[in-house]
Amino acid sequence: MLKNWNKPEKPEAEELEERLEAAKQKLRQQQMLIKDRKLPVFVLFEGWGTAGKGSILGKLILNIDPRFFKVATMDIPTEEEKRKPFLYRYFVKIPEAGKFCFLDSGWMDEVTKGCLHGSIKDKEYKKRIDSVKRFERQLTDNGYLVMKFFFQISQKEQKNRIKALEKERSTKWRVSDNDLWQNEHYDKCLKTYDQYLNDTNASTSPWYIVDAQNRKWALLQVLETLVNGIDTALQNSAMAVPLLQNVFPLEKIPKLSELPLDKVIEEDAYKQELKELQEKLRGLHNELYRKKIPVIIAYEGWDAAGKGGNIKRITGALDPRGYEVHPIASPEPHEKARHYLWRFWNRLPKTGHVAIFDRTWYGRVMVERLEGFCNENDWKRAYNEINEFEKELSDWGAVIIKFWVQIDKDVQLARFTDRQNTPEKQWKITDEDWRNREKWDQYEDAVNEMIKKTNTSYAPWHVLESNDKKYARIKALKIVIKELEKVL
Amino acid sequence: MLKNWNKPEKPEAEELEERLEAAKQKLRQQQMLIKDRKLPVFVLFEGWGTAGKGSILGKLILNIDPRFFKVATMDIPTEEEKRKPFLYRYFVKIPEAGKFCFLDSGWMDEVTKGCLHGSIKDKEYKKRIDSVKRFERQLTDNGYLVMKFFFQISQKEQKNRIKALEKERSTKWRVSDNDLWQNEHYDKCLKTYDQYLNDTNASTSPWYIVDAQNRKWALLQVLETLVNGIDTALQNSAMAVPLLQNVFPLEKIPKLSELPLDKVIEEDAYKQELKELQEKLRGLHNELYRKKIPVIIAYEGWDAAGKGGNIKRITGALDPRGYEVHPIASPEPHEKARHYLWRFWNRLPKTGHVAIFDRTWYGRVMVERLEGFCNENDWKRAYNEINEFEKELSDWGAVIIKFWVQIDKDVQLARFTDRQNTPEKQWKITDEDWRNREKWDQYEDAVNEMIKKTNTSYAPWHVLESNDKKYARIKALKIVIKELEKVL
Repeated sequence: MLKNWNKPEKPEAEELEERLEAAKQKLRQQQMLIKDRKLPVFVLFEGWGTAGKGSILGKLILNIDPRFFKVATMDIPTEEEKRKPFLYRYFVKIPEAGKFCFLDSGWMDEVTKGCLHGSIKDKEYKKRIDSVKRFERQLTDNGYLVMKFFFQISQKEQKNRIKALEKERSTKWRVSDNDLWQNEHYDKCLKTYDQYLNDTNASTSPWYIVDAQNRKWALLQVLETLVNGIDTALQNSAMAVPLLQNVFPLEKIPKLSELPLDKVIEEDAYKQELKELQEKLRGLHNELYRKKIPVIIAYEGWDAAGKGGNIKRITGALDPRGYEVHPIASPEPHEKARHYLWRFWNRLPKTGHVAIFDRTWYGRVMVERLEGFCNENDWKRAYNEINEFEKELSDWGAVIIKFWVQIDKDVQLARFTDRQNTPEKQWKITDEDWRNREKWDQYEDAVNEMIKKTNTSYAPWHVLESNDKKYARIKALKIVIKELEKVL
Repeated sequence: MLKNWNKPEKPEAEELEERLEAAKQKLRQQQMLIKDRKLPVFVLFEGWGTAGKGSILGKLILNIDPRFFKVATMDIPTEEEKRKPFLYRYFVKIPEAGKFCFLDSGWMDEVTKGCLHGSIKDKEYKKRIDSVKRFERQLTDNGYLVMKFFFQISQKEQKNRIKALEKERSTKWRVSDNDLWQNEHYDKCLKTYDQYLNDTNASTSPWYIVDAQNRKWALLQVLETLVNGIDTALQNSAMAVPLLQNVFPLEKIPKLSELPLDKVIEEDAYKQELKELQEKLRGLHNELYRKKIPVIIAYEGWDAAGKGGNIKRITGALDPRGYEVHPIASPEPHEKARHYLWRFWNRLPKTGHVAIFDRTWYGRVMVERLEGFCNENDWKRAYNEINEFEKELSDWGAVIIKFWVQIDKDVQLARFTDRQNTPEKQWKITDEDWRNREKWDQYEDAVNEMIKKTNTSYAPWHVLESNDKKYARIKALKIVIKELEKVL
């Protein structure tokens, strides 16, 4: 794209001023529509050092009410960020519905820098491109407007700018080593940028190359492209998008109704095994901490199936400094205003840590599906989105263990009734639990579909037969130990 | 995609039958919605020889009313088709709104065959991929549902099928040389197919790989994917799509109002020059016929600007066997029901021939824009679509000459009045002409924008000052001659 890019034609000064004024006006009007229509706008500024990204961004945002936007300047990843998946620091910055987020350099910069400095080789580059394409598609599929700008200047122009900045004591610090390196290796950089732009130029989130030779002119290009993009996005409401074929390796798994639930364990055996298994897990936890392997344990299951007690038997064996339990309730307003996976990206463990989720992102294809909190296209698309999400985690090196805690309808009734009749347990039972119980069959169908479509080889489901809670706890511990031993 | 493709899991016989019945039922219901909502559905069947594309297509269409679909079997291009651009034979087959078209092998087969047999090398392959991506994007951007299936069988399965077919006299003829070649070079083919699938797997028209080991199961996969795709498409109405940045080299050109219109030619000089220029053009026409160069001359201009007379002076010099004039009026219903460029793809010249268009595809950004025959997103997108269309023609080797025939408002009034008052010219003037005249200023703005945004180096505009029609005719002849001489 850069190679055969043709510079747009710069208008005369007078026309430029007129068009600038018109575009600013338009943007100021659009912000209220964006708010009303709950459109999230994610704007990415990439391009050459000294191309003026920062200063143009500074001028651009003067036209937007500060309540409606955030600016994020991405530098090299922090130590904390380095212990998360590559896309983590970008995903957590996605704007909420009705607001802008501007990113001053982002995932393009990180990937191309890695290529140029040799830390990202061919195979890894391809993986990154796949991740980026999935990430951007997941955003646009979920109603985000993603606008990507690349600020282009010539080698000569960059050299002149560097010289000018270096001359003044007050501006000298603004020339980075990377700017100097880029200018020296301009052609090599150009080739890498060009390749990246080509590889990630999707029709739903295309690249716009900005002629950044002149600041005002660059600002106009960005403004006009942005308001056009917003105009287009505002015309669409709740779009349905094609459902992609599953491309992840799935393992066969029986339906819930095919599982015998009569498995039990004797009290003595339980105590004995529990002690031994927890001892073993304790040792493994230390090891994975040292080897910096992240672990994600996801719990789903029927109300009163015994998730809480099961989780306690796992955490009982873990060093409190190395794990966190995330109870997942209905999303808070600031969570609901973002991509449904956002709150899970936000809760990912660091490398070497364990994150346990008491209910998970699978809510999308269960409660959100059945209660109509999202539309049909949303939940049908979600199987693939979730497989992609877990693939991202798995590629990062995470061990992913997914439990479905299974009981039958009678056992649930008994436990509900017990909760109802026992004063100190009454907080555990709500009207909603009873309402959900009425929809048992619908839920069971949804769960069967979910398990079938997301039982990938890299993040398989494990069903815990929990009519006997103790049996389920021992089984869970054994599975966790087995999965950890595989990687240790 | 093929390399890490995982076979979907085939259901048990009973479930398969149930799901087949359900999917057929659904498709039968959808056809009326498709009709009502005017959705055009373009279905592409690609894949290995003997994978059963034909027989599955045969079963599929039993569920659709014959009035609502067409099937096109693409074999190697005919001699006629070879004298058109690569995409011609596919573009002319796009379905009309509310109908299906099924293509048994299409542009994938043509491109990959070319690669495998060496007629398409690396550089040409990249060009073809760009063409294909543009083509598919133009369709989906314009509301088409494009579903692409690849029928996958293993080398062993293909071998078995070939053997089985060859055994029987009645089926032997169905094994093609290409099937045999594919089976012998299975890995090489697989690599080429895989590359192509990756290169053209857009999120708006993704690939679906069909496990074609078993016919019934393959049919189910196609049916279920198809009805899902239709469901998704039916949920969207008149979607706006992002406007792409211009990537074609544009030449600067003055606004219409900046052009002096006082250019005239003396009667004697006119006669003399006309004779000489036509003589010259006659010679060139012969030459381009022999060199098989296609020529496209496009006329746009104000009503009564003198387009017709101008065209006559060109055609007066041409051999009638080697040119065609296409007067373009408002589209017929069957034309309106398709992509707006369809009727122009349909009228492309063969190599060595000249096609003259009296009004053109630029109607999209003039009359259709101003009279509201398309929406804003449609005409704003059209500049790029038109540049892409002309790029396709230019890459094919066509000479493209675009004339804007310019007069001023007073001259138009004089010519209108003359037509009104001269009985034998009255047919040339309609109420619509007068209505259009009232919108002169709006049209002028639209024309300026159009010329500016589509004045590419490979298909530039030429303005003919036609207050003196004779001057304009001489100028047109000179330009045609100059452009042809460049390539001859």
